Amino acid sequence: MFVILVYDTAVERNPKVLKTCRKYLHWTQRSVFQGELSTAQYRALTAALNAVIDPTHDSIVTYRTRSPDLVETATLGIDLGGPGDIL
Amino acid sequence: MFVILVYDTAVERNPKVLKTCRKYLHWTQRSVFQGELSTAQYRALTAALNAVIDPTHDSIVTYRTRSPDLVETATLGIDLGGPGDIL
Repeated sequence: MFVILVYDTAVERNPKVLKTCRKYLHWTQRSVFQGELSTAQYRALTAALNAVIDPTHDSIVTYRTRSPDLVETATLGIDLGGPGDIL
Repeated sequence: MFVILVYDTAVERNPKVLKTCRKYLHWTQRSVFQGELSTAQYRALTAALNAVIDPTHDSIVTYRTRSPDLVETATLGIDLGGPGDIL
């Protein structure tokens, strides 16, 4: 599956959230990661994140599609995540 | 089309970026909007954003699918964007 992940977490928990996301996904932009994961990897990622966040304060949203081919990505301004079309 | 928009723009331009995004999309989370747009609306949105951002400093990424049905959304922690499943 293709995953886009956005997080809005307290500053003190951001390092752990970032570290967890980096293990599974590519950094796109401030607060945004994306990448292709298996179902098992997605479950491992969300389990790891649930262990790190404060569910009464933090928020993480994931958007999943079956394939990156279903998603058209466009960048306005600079491409922070890397050179060219990372899909 | 279904659009997810994430922005990483300079603080001084954020109010204009926010105002422009709010005209077309629903606020999801810090730096994230989403919603359904026609092709004409999407073009109007990106044209308005290109007029507001500094393309040498700011970055806005849009992810588009033909339909929200192609996207599975999940929230960990609190749902900041509104009650329940906004899709």
